[in-house]
Amino acid sequence: MSHIKLNNDFPGIVGLLEYSPRTAQPLLELAETLLRGPSPLSSGKREIIASSVSFKNGCHFCHTSHGASAAHHFGGDLSLIDAIKKDFEHKEISPKLRALLNIAHKVQQSGKKVTEEDVKKAREAGAGDQDIHDTVLIAATLCMYNRYVDGLGAWAPEEVKAYDEMGEQMAHQGYLREREGTSF
Amino acid sequence: MSHIKLNNDFPGIVGLLEYSPRTAQPLLELAETLLRGPSPLSSGKREIIASSVSFKNGCHFCHTSHGASAAHHFGGDLSLIDAIKKDFEHKEISPKLRALLNIAHKVQQSGKKVTEEDVKKAREAGAGDQDIHDTVLIAATLCMYNRYVDGLGAWAPEEVKAYDEMGEQMAHQGYLREREGTSF
Repeated sequence: MSHIKLNNDFPGIVGLLEYSPRTAQPLLELAETLLRGPSPLSSGKREIIASSVSFKNGCHFCHTSHGASAAHHFGGDLSLIDAIKKDFEHKEISPKLRALLNIAHKVQQSGKKVTEEDVKKAREAGAGDQDIHDTVLIAATLCMYNRYVDGLGAWAPEEVKAYDEMGEQMAHQGYLREREGTSF
Repeated sequence: MSHIKLNNDFPGIVGLLEYSPRTAQPLLELAETLLRGPSPLSSGKREIIASSVSFKNGCHFCHTSHGASAAHHFGGDLSLIDAIKKDFEHKEISPKLRALLNIAHKVQQSGKKVTEEDVKKAREAGAGDQDIHDTVLIAATLCMYNRYVDGLGAWAPEEVKAYDEMGEQMAHQGYLREREGTSF
């Protein structure tokens, strides 16, 4: 049960956005711009970073919904996403994405953990300034969403399949669509 | 030196916002809404929460600039703000703000650290749903800004007095003003 009375039954961040439309607007615009706007990183890879950081923060709603979105960007198969969540270093992902996930995981702990060596390795694997910028801001932003959801004790469905439709909408329609009864 | 080439000399988050205007817009709107929009908490108290969380995250640019803003809301004296940063529990602040700072500091560690007992204590001290919501989201949002600034290694002036004018502008003109050469 959430720590405050939300006056709606929507799960996770959806219920919080509905409770506070004033702050929902910039929060949703940030997600749309950061995860679906112009970037050298595909939206699928950005959703992998979002899901992986949320997994590290233990935020079930966020890592499962962004994981479902990432899977939909890559044809619907959750197995690769689940494998990356558990161990990104030994999976079949590109050296560039692996180096960016390393930076994202440092940011998840603290921005100060990112070293020049981390950045150098990402550059050697092909990352440019914008890749590094977007990775750091995605990781930082998910640290916010995760804390917002869990800090207010928002409820979240346990079963992964409950997130499939949400993930598909996040992947293909985005974060600013109109939904019946909610602005999310 | 920042980890990426920003093509500007602005310090802290200002240089990052200038580098990426696309993401700057929702980031600034969120700060304006959250720290200066309608809330049962005064802007001064919200800036204290922002500064205190940033201090816990060790983000010099953010805790010093939000600290300067908080001080300007309370007449310009930094000593109370500095005392709260160091130890909020034993300073002359209201039981309500103390209970909300306790929640903010839990969120700084992880959203999952906030307990029903923390929320109960805040309610007993006079906090309502909106106070608790705004406190959690301010703390979560600063965890994002702090990681954005430090994760990209943005430079920050060391001396506190360099933040005085910035703090005055944040307090009295807000986060969306036009400035010469920058949208911040």
